[in-house]
Amino acid sequence: MESLQPSSTQYRPTHMREVKWSPSEKNIARRVFEAALQREFDAITQEVKQMAQRIKTPSDLWALEDYLTQSRKEIDRKFDYRYSVLPIVFAQLITDGRITHEELRGLAEDKLGYVRLASESRARKSE
Amino acid sequence: MESLQPSSTQYRPTHMREVKWSPSEKNIARRVFEAALQREFDAITQEVKQMAQRIKTPSDLWALEDYLTQSRKEIDRKFDYRYSVLPIVFAQLITDGRITHEELRGLAEDKLGYVRLASESRARKSE
Repeated sequence: MESLQPSSTQYRPTHMREVKWSPSEKNIARRVFEAALQREFDAITQEVKQMAQRIKTPSDLWALEDYLTQSRKEIDRKFDYRYSVLPIVFAQLITDGRITHEELRGLAEDKLGYVRLASESRARKSE
Repeated sequence: MESLQPSSTQYRPTHMREVKWSPSEKNIARRVFEAALQREFDAITQEVKQMAQRIKTPSDLWALEDYLTQSRKEIDRKFDYRYSVLPIVFAQLITDGRITHEELRGLAEDKLGYVRLASESRARKSE
């Protein structure tokens, strides 16, 4: 894992851009990514239905609008399918509880190590 | 009604700014305005609940967001409680089916004539 540790802010993206993804890794990545996106939509949809049912005042309406706008922006920000950032995306999804390390089984250690590193770093930050 | 006919684009606002509203007319106007606003919110809430129940895809979510945003802007635009524009606001609400001429009973003819004129003009435009 030592070699995966970014040594500077410039090192990390350069490093990830150089990592190669095999066809089977791309398949796994795509499947996990799509599943996480679907779970995100399902969670938002469930919350929206509950919020809609509870609407009583105009401010409840605009709270729902705000929730939808924030959710859309959050999805745009979080779900970035570029291989150069995908391990960071997966690390964030693990921290959010949308995916597990287990689902990424089949990716090579050059990705998994990075995902672990990034998700542990995020977990420490949120402690 | 002849004297109420605006003779130029400059005439109409000048005319309405000069019209005096008695305390009892202001009471009626406020009551009708608030009732119309409540009906607008009720209609939006009903539509939002139905749309929320039918959500199946992400695009349904963003369609709901868009509906809420448009509704909020529409309310901001339509519900303008300035006496200088109130007859036009009431005319629009009549055209939209949110209020009836009957509810404005008690306002003096200088307002009612204007409301009739404006709502008939809007009805003709939408034919």
